[in-house]
Amino acid sequence: MGRWEPDAAGRLREAAMALYAERGFDGTTVAEIADRAGVTARTFFRHFADKREVLFAGSELLQERMVAALAAAPADATPMAAITSAVLASADFFDDIRRDYSRRRAAVITSTPELLERELIKMAKLTAALRQGLLDRGVPPDVAALAAETGVGVFRVSFERWISAPDDVPITDVLQATLQNLAALTA
Amino acid sequence: MGRWEPDAAGRLREAAMALYAERGFDGTTVAEIADRAGVTARTFFRHFADKREVLFAGSELLQERMVAALAAAPADATPMAAITSAVLASADFFDDIRRDYSRRRAAVITSTPELLERELIKMAKLTAALRQGLLDRGVPPDVAALAAETGVGVFRVSFERWISAPDDVPITDVLQATLQNLAALTA
Repeated sequence: MGRWEPDAAGRLREAAMALYAERGFDGTTVAEIADRAGVTARTFFRHFADKREVLFAGSELLQERMVAALAAAPADATPMAAITSAVLASADFFDDIRRDYSRRRAAVITSTPELLERELIKMAKLTAALRQGLLDRGVPPDVAALAAETGVGVFRVSFERWISAPDDVPITDVLQATLQNLAALTA
Repeated sequence: MGRWEPDAAGRLREAAMALYAERGFDGTTVAEIADRAGVTARTFFRHFADKREVLFAGSELLQERMVAALAAAPADATPMAAITSAVLASADFFDDIRRDYSRRRAAVITSTPELLERELIKMAKLTAALRQGLLDRGVPPDVAALAAETGVGVFRVSFERWISAPDDVPITDVLQATLQNLAALTA
């Protein structure tokens, strides 16, 4: 159980992750997840739509935070500056306490095709939300689509690097390094 | 039936696309697809693994072509130049004859969650293949990951724009415009 989330939802998440790692996603039932978390199946469904969704509630929060940062960027910010503030806002979410959880979650997702599919869908939704946020700022459609793809690309590459980096590297440093790589790549 | 592919595989593809549009993906069986294409179910399975895969055989060819272009880039090409030649190689695949098929396919995929998932998986595989191609060229891992994400982002945005563009706009022009947008975005 993560110290950052000592509630039923957090226990269900930890239980699901442990069971998927032990028995595989297909071999795990909602009843077993609830049982290990010490709650009823009814409680499970109060928090999550299905046994895939249990590992993805955080994705919604991450998206909200990134979209809010995009909206909060100064009105005269360039599209790149605006998407950069959204990308950097992900650092509030992935703090040091969440690092270990993020690592274990990534290991389970990578080895479970159904969860990997869901992860790809969440990333596509994040891309669409950021694109809409850029359109709302008056960014032309072609640039909004490209800036959203680029921003999510920077986030994905940074996140992957962060979870395999030493424990004292904050995700902000990795995000900044990736943004510098992007500038160098396209210069 | 597309003029560019008058064989059993092409007929099966067209039949599947038409049936998914008419009855939905869930409401369509392999037997019905085979029947409409005028072949047996056995023939279907000689060409495709399942009723999702029938619309995705082209994705493998596209990936092969892009990876081959990446490998064929001059040894001293920058990572951006190398990924750019991979992205531009997609234009050989999406010629004018394939435009109408691409439009109808995109409409079916967008409205069918299971097909949309498969499309995301194919794009993730393409990204991984291009990343590996860049690693094989000696590009450092962080840059390879970012360049692959960026290249696929450029491709996706361009493809979407191409299928909604007038019929006389070749995809090469759209890819070039998106690459210019990327340079302007990150300048």
